[in-house]
Amino acid sequence: SNDVKEYENYFGMTLLDRRSDKRTDSKWLSKKQSHPATVYILFSNLSPLVTLAGGRESSQQPEVKLCRLCHKDVEQCMSQTEECTLIFLGVDLQSDMNLAAVCNGRVQQEDEDGLVAWFALSIDASSAEKFKQKHEDCYFLHPPMPALLQLPEKESGVIAQARSVLAWHQRYRFCPTCGGATKIEEGGYKKTCLNKDCPSLQGVHNTSYPRVDPVVIMQVIHPDGNHCLLGRQKRFPPGMFTCLAGFVEPGETIENAVRREVEEEAGVKVAHVQYVSCQPWPMPSSLMIGCLAVAVSTEIKVDKNEIEDARWFTREQVVEVLVKGNQCSFFVPPSRALAHQLMKHWIGMNANL
Amino acid sequence: SNDVKEYENYFGMTLLDRRSDKRTDSKWLSKKQSHPATVYILFSNLSPLVTLAGGRESSQQPEVKLCRLCHKDVEQCMSQTEECTLIFLGVDLQSDMNLAAVCNGRVQQEDEDGLVAWFALSIDASSAEKFKQKHEDCYFLHPPMPALLQLPEKESGVIAQARSVLAWHQRYRFCPTCGGATKIEEGGYKKTCLNKDCPSLQGVHNTSYPRVDPVVIMQVIHPDGNHCLLGRQKRFPPGMFTCLAGFVEPGETIENAVRREVEEEAGVKVAHVQYVSCQPWPMPSSLMIGCLAVAVSTEIKVDKNEIEDARWFTREQVVEVLVKGNQCSFFVPPSRALAHQLMKHWIGMNANL
Ligand SMILES: Nc1ncnc2c1ncn2[C@@H]1O[C@H](COP(=O)(O)O)[C@@H](O)[C@H]1O
Ligand SMILES: Nc1ncnc2c1ncn2[C@@H]1O[C@H](COP(=O)(O)O)[C@@H](O)[C@H]1O
Repeated sequence: SNDVKEYENYFGMTLLDRRSDKRTDSKWLSKKQSHPATVYILFSNLSPLVTLAGGRESSQQPEVKLCRLCHKDVEQCMSQTEECTLIFLGVDLQSDMNLAAVCNGRVQQEDEDGLVAWFALSIDASSAEKFKQKHEDCYFLHPPMPALLQLPEKESGVIAQARSVLAWHQRYRFCPTCGGATKIEEGGYKKTCLNKDCPSLQGVHNTSYPRVDPVVIMQVIHPDGNHCLLGRQKRFPPGMFTCLAGFVEPGETIENAVRREVEEEAGVKVAHVQYVSCQPWPMPSSLMIGCLAVAVSTEIKVDKNEIEDARWFTREQVVEVLVKGNQCSFFVPPSRALAHQLMKHWIGMNANL
Repeated sequence: SNDVKEYENYFGMTLLDRRSDKRTDSKWLSKKQSHPATVYILFSNLSPLVTLAGGRESSQQPEVKLCRLCHKDVEQCMSQTEECTLIFLGVDLQSDMNLAAVCNGRVQQEDEDGLVAWFALSIDASSAEKFKQKHEDCYFLHPPMPALLQLPEKESGVIAQARSVLAWHQRYRFCPTCGGATKIEEGGYKKTCLNKDCPSLQGVHNTSYPRVDPVVIMQVIHPDGNHCLLGRQKRFPPGMFTCLAGFVEPGETIENAVRREVEEEAGVKVAHVQYVSCQPWPMPSSLMIGCLAVAVSTEIKVDKNEIEDARWFTREQVVEVLVKGNQCSFFVPPSRALAHQLMKHWIGMNANL
């Protein structure tokens, strides 16, 4: 069951093979950019372009879906907009099948490799406005949360990848080493300083590569094994409680970050820590590292600067809230959030003991 | 045994309680800066100041140790140097004992909290030169690798923390969002843009906080369970082989990063991935996430752009190299590297089956 669990987390699914080897193959990239089978997903201010699928004529709830555009759809807006960022996301894992479908009827070129490339394209506000006017059934999903969690599970990984890289370009326009302008390279995965005297050009530095922020998120178990520690921040909707979490600091292990955060936020001491599962969280580019942690003290002392409240909940309370949802006195994040999965894992684990 | 393992990894030890709550308490910080019990560790160009302990008169090998300085030692160089960076590292976990020892004889002030603060101080090249002339028995450890691995195990965590944060300040001097100048705050853990119109001042952004780069490093097991995959880069010393590794990309899980890197570098497909242990790696600020990975294909196809060679080694070969060290036809990184621990873990695990 652990084997399957790995693949399950929202934002962690892979629809694409990233093919990082193609990022430096500018000839291949430019050919794929105008290939009719290529898939484009569009972003404006980090919000993806979506549409409603089904539902209209059927009795089902309409489903929000990512708009998969082709080169023809974006050609004009790519040539007219000044501020557009293009990211190569990878190739469809089922390339051959899809290509056959798209090219149906059309004679395949001899030099075609059968790979369906995906790109993310970010356009500025005025281009986005124009685009929406032409495509009335589409809109940019905003605000990102919790709307992003409503997209089809298998598209979530593509969104996580694209949004994180685009957020990096949005926030890291200038070279942090010298303050100079930069240029984007390698399909969007590298940023190079344009100042030829900049020390960032000597050697390999992380200033040139996208940032991923590791965050620990932990289901803390009471020493009695039958309670867990959940907390809430002031900005949460009333009644919502979830696992404690925090950024891993420089020079710190995952396990010590868990211990530090739990003690800082709730005054509870933790000994054993066990990794369970992880989830990319593209707000803007975190990697949530989910753990179970066993407390060795029980008194809660909330740090009001960090959280508003933290309490021990019984196993029964957690089972009830996971089953009945918001029919309870409190509620937890949706099943697509890693916190929810950690709670489930704890319940399941205890049940199996 | 897993309980203990967590604490074992070099660079992952904690001698200090980080006390992040004190980072915003400038009164406390400035009082501690001049307190006689406060410990300073000194850096020049990311190299720590060390000294040789013992050995001189004894027959033992001399041991390299971090120089623990006090305020008097660094006072002058802090006031004379322009380019100095000060980082608050935390307080000694055994504060009370140590303070009693240092303040021996001296009457303790009423408002003292008994905490021994640690700071890292980075000074420029000319101040470093002057400092060395006055303290002949000390020197700056350079190059960092493999010398850093020779410091006492319990000091390794302090070094990892200090070096990572200092490297961030060295490489991230300017605001990446607007290119403007920044100022250091919160004991060295925050960097704020000085341009009051910068978008980085609206909301919380990772541009203000130190960077930690998650890296996966994996012991890949052959489907037969009795071989593992080790590789080497061109820049390695001849004969050295180690676990494959690579940076986690935006929007990617740990498990998928393992699968992608192994397939990219060696052409081998991996299914099951299991987290084992992690290690901060301050070159400059990586978090090495160590995993076991089970291969489902065996043919090796080396990507010469990434590595020079990759081979299946038998269990016996790995046991031999771990026991006999460089008496073998190949060798592996020292025991303080996570790769070494992963190999040991695999050997032990198989032996226990
Ligand atoms: N954060 C990062 N810091 C340095 N290199 C990175 C980073 N992310 C990706 N890379 C890539 O990884 C390569 C270096 O990998 P390595 O051989 O493990 O040092 C670089 O040439 C980059 O292409
Ligand atoms: N990489 C980071 N990005 C954002 N906030 C960070 C980062 N590292 C540390 N922090 C701190 O974490 C706080 C936000 O945490 P959170 O409430 O989890 O969003 C900020 O106020 C910062 O003090």
